[in-house]
Amino acid sequence: MNAPFRQLDTRILIDNPWHRYCKDHYLQRDGSEGVYYYVDMPASAAVLPLFADGSTLLLRSFRYLFGREIWEFPIGGVARGTDPLETAREELRQEAGFVATRWTPLGRALPYKGVSTETCHYFLAQDLNPCGQELEASEAATVHRMTLAQARECLFADDAVDGQSLAGLVHLERHLARRS
Amino acid sequence: MNAPFRQLDTRILIDNPWHRYCKDHYLQRDGSEGVYYYVDMPASAAVLPLFADGSTLLLRSFRYLFGREIWEFPIGGVARGTDPLETAREELRQEAGFVATRWTPLGRALPYKGVSTETCHYFLAQDLNPCGQELEASEAATVHRMTLAQARECLFADDAVDGQSLAGLVHLERHLARRS
Repeated sequence: MNAPFRQLDTRILIDNPWHRYCKDHYLQRDGSEGVYYYVDMPASAAVLPLFADGSTLLLRSFRYLFGREIWEFPIGGVARGTDPLETAREELRQEAGFVATRWTPLGRALPYKGVSTETCHYFLAQDLNPCGQELEASEAATVHRMTLAQARECLFADDAVDGQSLAGLVHLERHLARRS
Repeated sequence: MNAPFRQLDTRILIDNPWHRYCKDHYLQRDGSEGVYYYVDMPASAAVLPLFADGSTLLLRSFRYLFGREIWEFPIGGVARGTDPLETAREELRQEAGFVATRWTPLGRALPYKGVSTETCHYFLAQDLNPCGQELEASEAATVHRMTLAQARECLFADDAVDGQSLAGLVHLERHLARRS
């Protein structure tokens, strides 16, 4: 398919420490002019920890936007110019309190394709050792060790499953199925 | 866990036909003041079509933000005050060119929990009849009928899987497994 849309101009409306909020004008499929508002975010990095006994861990994180706790894997935004693996290491260390010496890329996902340019990079973390949680003031999370099957059920036990964590778990399940 | 964060004030920075972009001040876990930029979006609705022969359909949609085609299930934003099921019916009709007489809620997901308030509602659509696609100028998509296993592989064949579609497929797989 030839590209049915063409950018006419782009403007950054808000530039904050986490992302940019932008407005584009573009030519639509029928040649008419459209407007597109979106979040411009380079990437995020999510960690799927896997211990030697086959268990993993989930965070029970309080999420400001929903006013409640959500089950999720460690994940964080990747700053412009940063390697996603570096962010993954930091998120595992700070949010979950573990360091890992073996890292494997599992794949990528677009969490919010209609409104955000973000691509999430998933990493399997193995050979794990505890180092103590170091949460930021904007984070509130407890760490829970469990089997992969339990992690799947925890994610779905929430009123609404965390899409980014679910995509990570499915990536991990596919990785393990390929190796068995 | 007691709520570790408390909203101090909220401001709508941008109000467009699709969502609001907001900025809150809030008290963080340690009592310090934080700022939170986010997309305020009531909901989205996604359709998992299931034909009598067990097959489904995916859209191959050109996505402006990524400049390429992506495999996805029909999905659309739910306007404030609209029933998600109504949006699901409209998306199936316009984007995929089908009407369904049997609808079953499959569950919900938070696609982008850190930056958007959106909850996605998933619906199984059955007893399907073709009615012809009716795309908007901002949409460019072709319709492809396939098995559920092929749909799973298509989603993962993209450079980065569409997180919202994957969450829908897993919801559908769980629904079918419970009934078998």
